[in-house]
Amino acid sequence: MIPSTSRQCRLAARPVGLPKATDWAFAAEATPTPGPGQVLVKVLYISLDPAMRGWMNDARSYIPPVALGSVMRAGTIGRVVASNSDAFAIGDYVAGGQGVQEYAVAEATELRRVDPKLAPLPSYLGGLGMTGLSAYFGFFEVGLPKPGDVVLVSGAAGAVGSVVGQLAKAHGCSVVGIAGGADKCAYLREIGFDAAIDYKAESLPAALKTHCPKGVDVFFDNVGGSTLEAALARIRLHARVVICGAISGYNATEPVPGPSNWLSLLVNRARLEGFIVFDYQAKYGEALTALTKLYAEKKLVLREHVVEGTIADFSDTLLMLFRGENSGKLVLKIAAE
Amino acid sequence: MIPSTSRQCRLAARPVGLPKATDWAFAAEATPTPGPGQVLVKVLYISLDPAMRGWMNDARSYIPPVALGSVMRAGTIGRVVASNSDAFAIGDYVAGGQGVQEYAVAEATELRRVDPKLAPLPSYLGGLGMTGLSAYFGFFEVGLPKPGDVVLVSGAAGAVGSVVGQLAKAHGCSVVGIAGGADKCAYLREIGFDAAIDYKAESLPAALKTHCPKGVDVFFDNVGGSTLEAALARIRLHARVVICGAISGYNATEPVPGPSNWLSLLVNRARLEGFIVFDYQAKYGEALTALTKLYAEKKLVLREHVVEGTIADFSDTLLMLFRGENSGKLVLKIAAE
Repeated sequence: MIPSTSRQCRLAARPVGLPKATDWAFAAEATPTPGPGQVLVKVLYISLDPAMRGWMNDARSYIPPVALGSVMRAGTIGRVVASNSDAFAIGDYVAGGQGVQEYAVAEATELRRVDPKLAPLPSYLGGLGMTGLSAYFGFFEVGLPKPGDVVLVSGAAGAVGSVVGQLAKAHGCSVVGIAGGADKCAYLREIGFDAAIDYKAESLPAALKTHCPKGVDVFFDNVGGSTLEAALARIRLHARVVICGAISGYNATEPVPGPSNWLSLLVNRARLEGFIVFDYQAKYGEALTALTKLYAEKKLVLREHVVEGTIADFSDTLLMLFRGENSGKLVLKIAAE
Repeated sequence: MIPSTSRQCRLAARPVGLPKATDWAFAAEATPTPGPGQVLVKVLYISLDPAMRGWMNDARSYIPPVALGSVMRAGTIGRVVASNSDAFAIGDYVAGGQGVQEYAVAEATELRRVDPKLAPLPSYLGGLGMTGLSAYFGFFEVGLPKPGDVVLVSGAAGAVGSVVGQLAKAHGCSVVGIAGGADKCAYLREIGFDAAIDYKAESLPAALKTHCPKGVDVFFDNVGGSTLEAALARIRLHARVVICGAISGYNATEPVPGPSNWLSLLVNRARLEGFIVFDYQAKYGEALTALTKLYAEKKLVLREHVVEGTIADFSDTLLMLFRGENSGKLVLKIAAE
């Protein structure tokens, strides 16, 4: 039964600081009908990502901002409920970018079939989806790790960070994670990190001295701010600092100063480099194959933090990311599988 | 006639902020005698470099700090006045690191013969010496320029910057220089820069928009601070930002914040990377050959700012660098050729 109307979450205002309820508008519209080559997707799971905060700003960036009045952009897992394409049948599960809404028409070419027998569906938004791809390309293509390297990861209990740490271990590196809270740190040790630093309980500079006595070869940063500064103080010669994100500053209302010790990059002939996962589309297939293999071999443990609700819960759920309340990939479940 | 005593300039105190007269001690000692394989060098020209300020700090860096009480480290051009080595005869001109003193014993293996008929002796401290090597390796090995790239250089009328700009032109790039003052900017245009921005007379962000309308592929930075921030706002996709120095902050007595827009590196998948010329020693020969060839072809115009005096003038002359009073390579001449 396809309902005649479907609800959307649209961006109503450009947030200043943390997004608030009035930055969103919820309304129902007639459920669309797929045209030739298209399918109708019922959205089951919505991905929540720190990068979403940037997409809400009216600023030149790596993709256009979400326009005011548009459905909020989001990665999704859904089920095909009507099909005008030979590529998908009703009942197929698909990963795509259907956004924060209940039903969406999609081009068949923009969807990827996913198999709930191989992995839980939310994992295809996490380590077996864009999150895993971000970890994979940032770590290997920008971090240029060598076996034996000391790898430091911030936001290590988050979706990307927890995958990076496990990729590093599988690659023969030693790995130290930074996370907030004893539970997150225990989880990091459980999934193979050599050490975990609870930045809420310890002085980060002192803990880095203890756990990275020889310094850091690859720093995979999701946090920025004082975390980046503390790590720059510990980098080794020719270190690679990978900028995946900088969640500590995403909701700042004033410019956030950069790290005052950035000349550590000069002293250590080191590099600070950003990347965007979308640049590696040509290699998504090989990366997903590698991630799926590690997952099947149990060398890649995935954890999703699934919040059950409706699209009306999107606003509050997103804030969990900025409060550090998620451990693993944060996903909003809006319908039963 | 070799005098029986020779004067030295020694580091007497670690400077706080700009070095002051009391940070130096001048004294005479018995002129040393060369042992086997050594020569006695009479210092004629002393190189003044922004990096010297860093060497005076008691901080872990790419080379050990100058110890308190030691002769100040400096690149020099001198004449051999006594020789215990088959490699050098009395009267030979040599480039080396004899420091801020009048006479010094040196291992023959640590000296490079230079020819005053090919180029003025001070040029061997500038574009045909360590300065030119810094420009060469920073630009080519870290900047990774392609013909057609837009290259931006800060401190462009300085020793390294003016060479970088000319290397870039010879490589088929377009080049914009940033310098302080109309005279320096006129000089940049004279030696082939496509445009020169006088940061003292113009708003740097606005001028960069005008002169780099498509953005910047390679930014070769000698300055740091607000100059780096303005450039980061204009970088193109996959830009390379080369950290050669950050003279704007060398005498700061408080930590200087890094650029608040460093996430431009993420948005543009760009890189900020430091280098140290000493890492490229194995390639000094080929680089000097290339620089000398460009110089002979008049594609590399060199200018030295020669201050005549004694080693007692070292302290004041060094400050000219931090006041932007030099144009081209700053050299202190302490004896006639």
